[in-house]
Amino acid sequence: MRMPEPDAKTIARRARIARDLRRIVPGDGVIVDEDGLRAYECDGLSAYRQPPLIVALPSTTEQVSRVLRYCHENAVKIVPRGAGTSLSGGALPLADAVTLGLGKFNRILDIDLANRCVVAQPGVTNLAITQAVQAEGFYYAPDPSSQIACSIGGNVAENAGGVHCLKYGLTTNNLLGLEMVLMTGEVLRLGGKHLDAGDYDLMGVITGSEGLLGVITEVTVRILRAPETARVVLMGFPDNESAAATVAAIIAAGIIPAGLEMMDRPAIHAAEDFVHADYPLDVEALLICELDGPEAEVTHRIEQVESLARHHGVKTLRVSASDAERALFWAGRKAAFPAVGRISPDYYCMDGTIPRHALPTVLSRMAAMASHYGLRVANVFHAGDGNLHPLILFDANTPGELERAEQFGADILKLCVEVGGVLTGEHGVGVEKRDLMGEMFSEIDLMQQQRLKCAFDPGQLLNPGKVFPTLHRCAELGQMRMSGGSMPFPEIPRF
Amino acid sequence: MRMPEPDAKTIARRARIARDLRRIVPGDGVIVDEDGLRAYECDGLSAYRQPPLIVALPSTTEQVSRVLRYCHENAVKIVPRGAGTSLSGGALPLADAVTLGLGKFNRILDIDLANRCVVAQPGVTNLAITQAVQAEGFYYAPDPSSQIACSIGGNVAENAGGVHCLKYGLTTNNLLGLEMVLMTGEVLRLGGKHLDAGDYDLMGVITGSEGLLGVITEVTVRILRAPETARVVLMGFPDNESAAATVAAIIAAGIIPAGLEMMDRPAIHAAEDFVHADYPLDVEALLICELDGPEAEVTHRIEQVESLARHHGVKTLRVSASDAERALFWAGRKAAFPAVGRISPDYYCMDGTIPRHALPTVLSRMAAMASHYGLRVANVFHAGDGNLHPLILFDANTPGELERAEQFGADILKLCVEVGGVLTGEHGVGVEKRDLMGEMFSEIDLMQQQRLKCAFDPGQLLNPGKVFPTLHRCAELGQMRMSGGSMPFPEIPRF
Repeated sequence: MRMPEPDAKTIARRARIARDLRRIVPGDGVIVDEDGLRAYECDGLSAYRQPPLIVALPSTTEQVSRVLRYCHENAVKIVPRGAGTSLSGGALPLADAVTLGLGKFNRILDIDLANRCVVAQPGVTNLAITQAVQAEGFYYAPDPSSQIACSIGGNVAENAGGVHCLKYGLTTNNLLGLEMVLMTGEVLRLGGKHLDAGDYDLMGVITGSEGLLGVITEVTVRILRAPETARVVLMGFPDNESAAATVAAIIAAGIIPAGLEMMDRPAIHAAEDFVHADYPLDVEALLICELDGPEAEVTHRIEQVESLARHHGVKTLRVSASDAERALFWAGRKAAFPAVGRISPDYYCMDGTIPRHALPTVLSRMAAMASHYGLRVANVFHAGDGNLHPLILFDANTPGELERAEQFGADILKLCVEVGGVLTGEHGVGVEKRDLMGEMFSEIDLMQQQRLKCAFDPGQLLNPGKVFPTLHRCAELGQMRMSGGSMPFPEIPRF
Repeated sequence: MRMPEPDAKTIARRARIARDLRRIVPGDGVIVDEDGLRAYECDGLSAYRQPPLIVALPSTTEQVSRVLRYCHENAVKIVPRGAGTSLSGGALPLADAVTLGLGKFNRILDIDLANRCVVAQPGVTNLAITQAVQAEGFYYAPDPSSQIACSIGGNVAENAGGVHCLKYGLTTNNLLGLEMVLMTGEVLRLGGKHLDAGDYDLMGVITGSEGLLGVITEVTVRILRAPETARVVLMGFPDNESAAATVAAIIAAGIIPAGLEMMDRPAIHAAEDFVHADYPLDVEALLICELDGPEAEVTHRIEQVESLARHHGVKTLRVSASDAERALFWAGRKAAFPAVGRISPDYYCMDGTIPRHALPTVLSRMAAMASHYGLRVANVFHAGDGNLHPLILFDANTPGELERAEQFGADILKLCVEVGGVLTGEHGVGVEKRDLMGEMFSEIDLMQQQRLKCAFDPGQLLNPGKVFPTLHRCAELGQMRMSGGSMPFPEIPRF
């Protein structure tokens, strides 16, 4: 597919901005040719594609600062991009915006074992941080399935999770410090190697802000000592309800597994066909429960988990006897997405979070929806923290199926909100769930979010069109005008 | 001491505002008489005293909303107040502001064991949350020393810590949801019973914002299952360095104790004289290390801790043999502040945080400072997370001693920043450390913090005079004017 020809005005604007940016980012760091731009036309949500106006690839904080300041002064929109693995379209380009790629920020700057942290540039991959410290017996805990490719800066922007986040927290719980550049070009340093600082938690706001507040140029993360022992209990159940009840019982018993994942029948079969992880095929639901810690604790916890599972009618139960077997049990789970890709021409990966007790309800209502829409769904999820990843199977070449899949997905997310959960667990809102934000947040909630956005980017040049269903002009949010101490705030609901 | 007589203008303003507030808060909820106001003239930082203009004690969210909206529309300043236990003057009144007391918000609204959380009004005490669930085997982890009195709403405003925060996190790590009222009267709901939500982390920003962004009217916190076993190892060392090295070794070994506290010689003696906790008196430094979890793990961990302590020259080591003995070992630590109060006419409690590896340096430099200022210092601190609480002993009746103590305290906090730490660990900035913020944060850092403040409270009516050394008018921060897409931001440092 060829790109549509840009109009004369766009061509002239592109040439002018590229010329200016080349004065800031030298060498081959500014891309304007069609093939070069096409490489950046989508991220992990590849149903949406749009080549950017220009791609800029700075390699220093100074360059990022000068690019942002230039764009700020000339009202040029900017879309920051890490490794481009976002599943919600967070790095989707705009036809009239510069995509700012952080790929050249690929160095680890400091390994500080005494303070148990690593300082890295944002383009370093998640896995590379663990690899840099594993010989010393340490690791970085959050482990998204894309960890071989996704960048730590993108992890911060999306507040990425992973199978080990139940016990060790999401990115936000493992982040100690940031350097970031504001849209004005100002450089902020937040946090450091110490714990909580005595100011507003800007670092918390930046984490998960999806590139709308600033561009991250350095990340300091906490690393953990690798546990003495880690073993996996693989449990097959005759139905989803008994698996869900076992999850609840494990958590209620005060056990926090290092990972507690659930797969339903379609996901089990797809994964087993693909990686031969030795999963039982005569069950409806599979739990993968990893316990880690001192040997004595792990042995004790495994006995408790076994006993709880038997109480809830487990059909097959196996404990990994070696690290190789543990890796095999995980391999099926970690390959579940591509495995499902083998059994369906297309699939759509959802990401919602629900309170744990609602698991059985949500699973049975999703099954009813699947039959309503005439589409199959495979479920793979972080059961321990209630984070669902339903995979809706469809064929984009069958007219109407994509639309039905999208409608089905929206219904699932609305259901998550209805039972007291949220629209997203770890994939972000991006463009994918933007129009569903109103299902979860009131007009007041969204306006306060946007007032905060205005405090960082009043010109609304950073990653526009993401997250918020409609973005008010900052002036409309009442921050701009003051008269006699009273502010023209929007109408407040009266009791 | 009598209050100075207010002038006629203040009397008229007080009468007018009190009349208006009584239409919103009925009954005895609006206080204007001298004795009534005096009860609110200070918080835990009692060196600063100022009776408020008026005290309002609303009892519903609707009343809070209407009071704030009224103050917003009439440019009346507001100082929110929980239990008034702040050690940094966070709830210090202003002569021209309404103190908004949340004491009537004292009900627990929901105990939800299936989702392991409690929903409480902000005036409920920290300890009352644990008491409400302990019969079922649960507890709320963050435990400030003031937990019998301090309120959960104040804990959120100050991001309170406690001896168990090394393992279980500060307030921010145990908070799931909030209801809060903005200065405009708008009511926001943030988070809920689920995990991380798909929007900017406003809840993180609110936590630790010291009452400058809004008034909290409901809190949802995570509760934890009480551990099967908890035992304390009490270790006496011949010098501070070997105790500090043992702390580092415990953490480096991958052990995260439930609490890891250190006391120096003056603190040990003061505590022992006061509560007879059976502490060794022939040592220079004491470590109190609590291990919790399954019996098997605790036994194993205690062996490891013992071995590390012996390697670093521990002089005496005892393990609690019963829950009664464990409570006794803690009693000395928990009573350390009042114990020091018995050996000195006055003391000044500092609160700084440093990277753990800097402990020995900071302790020896503090000793040098003590001799420079001719004042004694006793040290009690959360060693595991590097949070120091030096207690500077002085006599306010000796001319010049208060000033010397304050100067000494400022030097300690500057030292914390110098070694890579922060001005405050858990007590907040308030008025106490306001003028030291510039030691830690650059002008750019502080301006971005203030832009965020403006997004919540553009009239700067909420708790003014706290946290920021000088507060810019929101208009000066460049958020107010836009011309041709370019913003009059302050000068940006050029590279």
